Amino acid sequence: MTTDATGTGVTEQAVASLRATPDPRLRELLTALVRHLHDFARETRLTQGEWERAIAFLTATGQTCTDTRQEFILLSDVLGLSMLVETVHGDRAPGATESTVLGPFHLTESPVRELGDDIDLVGGGEPCVVSGRVRSADGTPLPGAVVDVWQADDQGYYDVQQPGVQPAGNGRGLFTADAEGRFWFRTCVPAPYPIPTDGPVGELLRATGRHPYRPAHIHFIASAAGHAPVTTHIFVAGDDYLDSDAVFAVKESLVQDFAETDDPSLAREFGVPNPFRHARFDLVLEPAP
Amino acid sequence: MTTDATGTGVTEQAVASLRATPDPRLRELLTALVRHLHDFARETRLTQGEWERAIAFLTATGQTCTDTRQEFILLSDVLGLSMLVETVHGDRAPGATESTVLGPFHLTESPVRELGDDIDLVGGGEPCVVSGRVRSADGTPLPGAVVDVWQADDQGYYDVQQPGVQPAGNGRGLFTADAEGRFWFRTCVPAPYPIPTDGPVGELLRATGRHPYRPAHIHFIASAAGHAPVTTHIFVAGDDYLDSDAVFAVKESLVQDFAETDDPSLAREFGVPNPFRHARFDLVLEPAP
Ligand SMILES: [Fe+2]
Ligand SMILES: [Fe+2]
Repeated sequence: MTTDATGTGVTEQAVASLRATPDPRLRELLTALVRHLHDFARETRLTQGEWERAIAFLTATGQTCTDTRQEFILLSDVLGLSMLVETVHGDRAPGATESTVLGPFHLTESPVRELGDDIDLVGGGEPCVVSGRVRSADGTPLPGAVVDVWQADDQGYYDVQQPGVQPAGNGRGLFTADAEGRFWFRTCVPAPYPIPTDGPVGELLRATGRHPYRPAHIHFIASAAGHAPVTTHIFVAGDDYLDSDAVFAVKESLVQDFAETDDPSLAREFGVPNPFRHARFDLVLEPAP
Repeated sequence: MTTDATGTGVTEQAVASLRATPDPRLRELLTALVRHLHDFARETRLTQGEWERAIAFLTATGQTCTDTRQEFILLSDVLGLSMLVETVHGDRAPGATESTVLGPFHLTESPVRELGDDIDLVGGGEPCVVSGRVRSADGTPLPGAVVDVWQADDQGYYDVQQPGVQPAGNGRGLFTADAEGRFWFRTCVPAPYPIPTDGPVGELLRATGRHPYRPAHIHFIASAAGHAPVTTHIFVAGDDYLDSDAVFAVKESLVQDFAETDDPSLAREFGVPNPFRHARFDLVLEPAP
């Protein structure tokens, strides 16, 4: 029973209630969570009214989630938590590709595509080619590596945000690297886009005077046998929002030139009109521990 | 842009993004929240997989909420956060009634009832009377004070948990104190009950080896002009769960004898069979600041 005015007794009771948790890692996580949540409420002297608003906000966040929308990932993203989780586990081998956030739009499976396919099923944007090699940190190519790609279109929308407007799978592809670890595909240059602002996270951004934009990027998850997969982006160099990404996901090593390329034979090889924009990006995986 | 391995750069970026928040209190709360959430993830080296499970858990918690069920309040309750928020604001005038958690079952409006009404609309439980006086901390009675009451039935269920089984408003009443600040009503002695365990919070309790029981109690919110309202319970003395309440809400001053009373004239006055159980509990409010 508690009678203390600082609430330390409540905190100790809540921590004590977790002592019989069979999984030691779960016990560690929940104990740390209770301590930090309680410290937060104690330090700020969180009021009942504020707590009620927080409960309503979290409830609305959960209820905004659907099969194609993940508002809690978005919330974690705009608080920098998603990027922090990526970053504290970012101690990769030198030269390995840096990771960044998954984001809320990887909810559908990318359609299997052939190397060289165009993932822009609609057209109208600026055509470009993305190519590179999947290799191990020691330089060995990784044939058969799987490269999962997804991006917004040239208007800044993912397919799942515009059912009936974009065909399902637009901007998405699941590619298998060739015998030398190479991958290449056609697409349009992605546009910077606002994260969805019609839900609770949008309210939060407005209340904090923040813009909702992310610099233009293409998402990747690369995986290969015997290696740790990497979840990352490439960002389009020169984008206005590189220094104020709404989800704090930019790392310098991931910013890539989508360089204007005038090379008729290469254009013919890739099946695009010359000149064309071309981003080259190797995906370098760490051997699994 | 961030390149640091501890993620302090991400934390500072997230904090900096809140600097333009117009409402200074919101800025203070969100800044403290970001710092504590990030410290939690950094200290525990939260992994991507654990973060994904947390996102799924929070999503399921939001989606379990309905008009009659509030799973986020339940989550806050079992983590001791609700009680902590009550406790850090519990510095009331000497003698004022101590507060405790609201709980997740105050989602419907209590029906207006007359003093002396029976809020047990079903019967079958052990009849009892609850009576007391609403007064100000200096002892002055508070005529016209409003006393909102809700409780589980003798099987441990609230009306909103059993639509079609219990009539709406069973176990609930909104009373107005008489000219001397007195209130009294009939009911059944409440049973201890398990909080709902068929949702995410139930999973959490099972994973932590905790029982879901709350000691038997009746909820009150008392309010009167010129005074701060109090949200509280009375607990039935002798209950087995007083020392292990699943939501940490017990305070010694709130534990009351539901005393067996053999007084035929009093029984007649209250309209109950003699002998009967009788809990006496004054609600003492602090003058509003
Ligand atoms: Fe994205
Ligand atoms: Fe209750």
